[in-house]
Amino acid sequence: MLIVMKNNASAEQIHTVVGVVKEMGYDATPIPGGQRTAIGIIGNDGGISSDRLAGLEGVLELIPVTHPYKQVSREWQSENTVVSLPNGTKIGGSDLVLMAGPCSVENEREILDIAHRVKDVGATVLRGGAFKPRSSPYSFQGLGLQGLEFLARAREETGLAVVTEALDPDGVDLVVKYADIVQIGARNMQNYALLRRVGRAGKPVLLKRGISATIDELLLAAEYILAEGNPDVILCERGIRSFDTHTRNLFDLAAIPVVKSLSHLPIIADPSHGTGIRSKVTPMGRAAVAAGADGLIVEVHPNPPKAMSDGAQSLYPDQFTKLVDEVKVIARAIGRNFNPTLQ
Amino acid sequence: MLIVMKNNASAEQIHTVVGVVKEMGYDATPIPGGQRTAIGIIGNDGGISSDRLAGLEGVLELIPVTHPYKQVSREWQSENTVVSLPNGTKIGGSDLVLMAGPCSVENEREILDIAHRVKDVGATVLRGGAFKPRSSPYSFQGLGLQGLEFLARAREETGLAVVTEALDPDGVDLVVKYADIVQIGARNMQNYALLRRVGRAGKPVLLKRGISATIDELLLAAEYILAEGNPDVILCERGIRSFDTHTRNLFDLAAIPVVKSLSHLPIIADPSHGTGIRSKVTPMGRAAVAAGADGLIVEVHPNPPKAMSDGAQSLYPDQFTKLVDEVKVIARAIGRNFNPTLQ
Amino acid sequence: MLIVMKNNASAEQIHTVVGVVKEMGYDATPIPGGQRTAIGIIGNDGGISSDRLAGLEGVLELIPVTHPYKQVSREWQSENTVVSLPNGTKIGGSDLVLMAGPCSVENEREILDIAHRVKDVGATVLRGGAFKPRSSPYSFQGLGLQGLEFLARAREETGLAVVTEALDPDGVDLVVKYADIVQIGARNMQNYALLRRVGRAGKPVLLKRGISATIDELLLAAEYILAEGNPDVILCERGIRSFDTHTRNLFDLAAIPVVKSLSHLPIIADPSHGTGIRSKVTPMGRAAVAAGADGLIVEVHPNPPKAMSDGAQSLYPDQFTKLVDEVKVIARAIGRNFNPTLQ
Amino acid sequence: MLIVMKNNASAEQIHTVVGVVKEMGYDATPIPGGQRTAIGIIGNDGGISSDRLAGLEGVLELIPVTHPYKQVSREWQSENTVVSLPNGTKIGGSDLVLMAGPCSVENEREILDIAHRVKDVGATVLRGGAFKPRSSPYSFQGLGLQGLEFLARAREETGLAVVTEALDPDGVDLVVKYADIVQIGARNMQNYALLRRVGRAGKPVLLKRGISATIDELLLAAEYILAEGNPDVILCERGIRSFDTHTRNLFDLAAIPVVKSLSHLPIIADPSHGTGIRSKVTPMGRAAVAAGADGLIVEVHPNPPKAMSDGAQSLYPDQFTKLVDEVKVIARAIGRNFNPTLQ
Repeated sequence: MLIVMKNNASAEQIHTVVGVVKEMGYDATPIPGGQRTAIGIIGNDGGISSDRLAGLEGVLELIPVTHPYKQVSREWQSENTVVSLPNGTKIGGSDLVLMAGPCSVENEREILDIAHRVKDVGATVLRGGAFKPRSSPYSFQGLGLQGLEFLARAREETGLAVVTEALDPDGVDLVVKYADIVQIGARNMQNYALLRRVGRAGKPVLLKRGISATIDELLLAAEYILAEGNPDVILCERGIRSFDTHTRNLFDLAAIPVVKSLSHLPIIADPSHGTGIRSKVTPMGRAAVAAGADGLIVEVHPNPPKAMSDGAQSLYPDQFTKLVDEVKVIARAIGRNFNPTLQ
Repeated sequence: MLIVMKNNASAEQIHTVVGVVKEMGYDATPIPGGQRTAIGIIGNDGGISSDRLAGLEGVLELIPVTHPYKQVSREWQSENTVVSLPNGTKIGGSDLVLMAGPCSVENEREILDIAHRVKDVGATVLRGGAFKPRSSPYSFQGLGLQGLEFLARAREETGLAVVTEALDPDGVDLVVKYADIVQIGARNMQNYALLRRVGRAGKPVLLKRGISATIDELLLAAEYILAEGNPDVILCERGIRSFDTHTRNLFDLAAIPVVKSLSHLPIIADPSHGTGIRSKVTPMGRAAVAAGADGLIVEVHPNPPKAMSDGAQSLYPDQFTKLVDEVKVIARAIGRNFNPTLQ
Repeated sequence: MLIVMKNNASAEQIHTVVGVVKEMGYDATPIPGGQRTAIGIIGNDGGISSDRLAGLEGVLELIPVTHPYKQVSREWQSENTVVSLPNGTKIGGSDLVLMAGPCSVENEREILDIAHRVKDVGATVLRGGAFKPRSSPYSFQGLGLQGLEFLARAREETGLAVVTEALDPDGVDLVVKYADIVQIGARNMQNYALLRRVGRAGKPVLLKRGISATIDELLLAAEYILAEGNPDVILCERGIRSFDTHTRNLFDLAAIPVVKSLSHLPIIADPSHGTGIRSKVTPMGRAAVAAGADGLIVEVHPNPPKAMSDGAQSLYPDQFTKLVDEVKVIARAIGRNFNPTLQ
Repeated sequence: MLIVMKNNASAEQIHTVVGVVKEMGYDATPIPGGQRTAIGIIGNDGGISSDRLAGLEGVLELIPVTHPYKQVSREWQSENTVVSLPNGTKIGGSDLVLMAGPCSVENEREILDIAHRVKDVGATVLRGGAFKPRSSPYSFQGLGLQGLEFLARAREETGLAVVTEALDPDGVDLVVKYADIVQIGARNMQNYALLRRVGRAGKPVLLKRGISATIDELLLAAEYILAEGNPDVILCERGIRSFDTHTRNLFDLAAIPVVKSLSHLPIIADPSHGTGIRSKVTPMGRAAVAAGADGLIVEVHPNPPKAMSDGAQSLYPDQFTKLVDEVKVIARAIGRNFNPTLQ
């Protein structure tokens, strides 16, 4: 933390600031400059609160020098975290991992059908929502427990791992019984009670970036989970809010290499929510892999026009096959493996 | 809902779209145009899902004609909702209402002291966080239950009503026992489990706008609460995310008159979070009242440099007095009352 | 400027950075810290370029400590700049100044009519576009020279000063002959050739904030004008781009007190473009004055539904009268004068 | 255009709106609905102005059904525009095109050196700024005419085509004499005088997306150039403004497939400005090609730490070589050619 003083700050004001810093338990070193004095806080460990300092007399601004997160940072752990699932899938290593399935689980026949199809072309994880967060209270909210049971059935039949969303702390207990990965959706990225609960859930977590979360906020949300003892967090870029209405969200693919520099956690991309438009899912899925994503999570539906949610962004099974064919080549071009085999 | 077809859409594609709409239970009327055909859906009641339609062949775009919320809209109820508190405060009528207090409840002596001070100059509601949502898991998280007890003590002594935040469904039950208004913070604006719980809590709710929520999303979040039977929702503009770093958030005051046109619910403004800078709280508090806010919620601390959170944006008690003096005149200039008396 | 080194930066890398800084003509002081070393550049005067430093080996990030503008800053000149017009209007002092008129000058009769009307209720500056920047090449582009002549006629008849926009360097020469203030529109805020030309034009300049300009960029654009020798720059907040579609722009009123802290230049507000909706112009005009704006610029048209541009955001003359009545009271409540008299 | 009336709009208000539309020369058809009436304007050709309609009594909102641009749209011309340069380079066809070079031309030796190097690995166009738009008036502004001469020398020696920026209408005449492509920078995307001048310049134009331009605004800016008779416009995605500070801009790669659907014009990507960070240029260059870009424009400098501008985002020549190797494979994987040969 660097405290920059105003150019007319008095010696007494500087003295007071130094005193407050010491009261907080850190060391403070005034650094006189050409125009003004700055005060460096040099004994801290990343987590200093600026609240008390910002309002002191004579302070111009506070400049954080270290990031506020710890265990998620690459400085804390230099080698990549690799999350292993019971079916042998490894996320964050050299393999490109594909997760696919419908937005919502709608009925048993359909989820089994789509599970077989996405497995056949190389997906190793099945996605499907049983509990759906919807902007309107009047929209379809998911099948709930029955949806979880259908997912478990699909896993039994295909060997695919299952990822599905939990919406509240109580829901985590339920989802954990059926899923291999618990998904925390974008709207809940800063639902701290929920983050703490999945931090103690004993299952890997797929944490989606909030709709206008900074990368630092995404990493801090992950820190909540690691701080409870769960190291198996997979981040997910899924588009952020912006001003152009041609796409549902603004797919921030540069977040992928940025996260890779800052953190050891794996990061995948969701081109379905990232664009919101079926015809843009394939080019942007390719782009995400080229940018270095550890995997993709894609909405695929046997008959998108009949889907109960997100039909406009769901791929037809044949389109998913073509997407896989293209990303396979790109993955290999940049030194990644793509040899999906289930144990 | 208007479905705009591509200019080369075939008669068969148009026919299919009309069929799907009818299957969904609505009427569809093709409207041939100079360049292309549009299809109007005319029997619906606002809540139609675009998911199935957006991906049909030949569809260019879907244009929602009615808004997706209902009970919160002014078309549903034309007169203003006025929320009444046990101490006689009425929010949403002709009175300007002031809520003030520290960011966090830190100890009993301090909350009693500040409660007396803000009451003396015209506040009728005391704010103070017992449960604090923090970006970092390592920041101060609030006093919890003890904080609630201190707030209740302050209410007994002063007659002020109490507003404080609940972070999760279980917390609602606790907060409801001590507070007159349950606050839902910006990070939880789309935490639907929490919204449903406060919808059944039997106490007024202060719903803060999410960090990048559209006005429609704010109204839909309120709709979740009304849909559970609780009509007493107070909205709060508290700044949204933007690209300039000079202020903590971008205080969107135009949201106030916009909400007033769209909805009958009261809306107040939070210039403390809206700006994040003590010296900007007073001008922007004045501006919010001039824009038509039904009230202000302001962070005031006996000694901001010692505050455990949000010190940089908390007013000194004397600054709050000056703010009240100024907004009083502005309120009266635009035809509002300011005669705070507690029952 | 503070250069933060990575926590594993070598002594040699630190040595190289110090060398480059010295080669650039500044002094560099390494500041060893708990986790990493920072290097302070302490002899510079605000204008240092980070381009050469950011890419050096071992550099984590560069943190500018002083702002990149000079003459516009309050540290350069502590007292407010007051811009005086030939008709006695003073902008930036204690007076609240009102500028009003149609979006475009459409014909002589109408501009004379509206000039009289806005003068009668207290405006001292007439606005009206003769050259119009339009997103589409097929939209009405203004009357050009004839529009300027009509504006000059209106000035003769009423004593109002005239503000109108110049779109390119050649246009400045023309506008300067007819106007008292040359307006630079939002789209041209970083058109440096144009800024330089008005910097030498010998007339006050109204500089509108770019559609997504930061406050620092606005001040740097003004710096271009001052750097050419023209001190009479009036800034204008007119809304920035954001994600909500209920208003045309996001009216960033907090920019007013922020600019007031950083700079001595006057700043006015444009609630017409700031909101884009007639019914929101009055509440947001009031809010701008309450936030401390030195004046307002408002679109007023004798018959908005017939306006050739911006009809939806233009006030009817009677609505402007009501706006003036309300802002008058607010201005006085916060210690401003409103006694418009023309010399 | 669809005009949605309020649900309580009177028959007379509807009648008036229909009258105004007819007065404007179009046909209007009222479409009665379940909750409200809409009025379709069906004889127009895309360019209707909403200004007069938005403010009429009883109007709830206006919904544009067709886009406001014409000649740039794929509905106007379905096959791709391919821009041909004198050295045989074709942009917008099946070839992937690489443009590379320093941010600014700094001296003759260096530009010749870098020209040879980028040509050797497959670039066919040399970039380099002679006139530089800078946020601060005190930053390096480019070598001007001399820079153009050095670029021409490099073309003679290498056969590379040259792209360089023009900052104002007069500058266009100069740039046209030396360059094969005239670049219009992001800050000037809506500088209409400049757009019109390059529309008559008889040379291809590289039009960069404005810092917060919507895709529609980018296409409308291109429309200004086509409307003057110049069909050879190459669009360029270079990042837009957002709230995260980890990258210089938010690189909006989805704009590439979106533009490809809406327009026949070629679009390339600039990962150097898109990210602002050397280590992110390669992954995001790959991603842009995977997303379907017709080419890349990349900053390469013989010694980035010594660059006079944009050093932090310039690649070392070896890094450029590696980038080319990787994008080559990706290009071929998605069916593009990469066989750069100069005539």
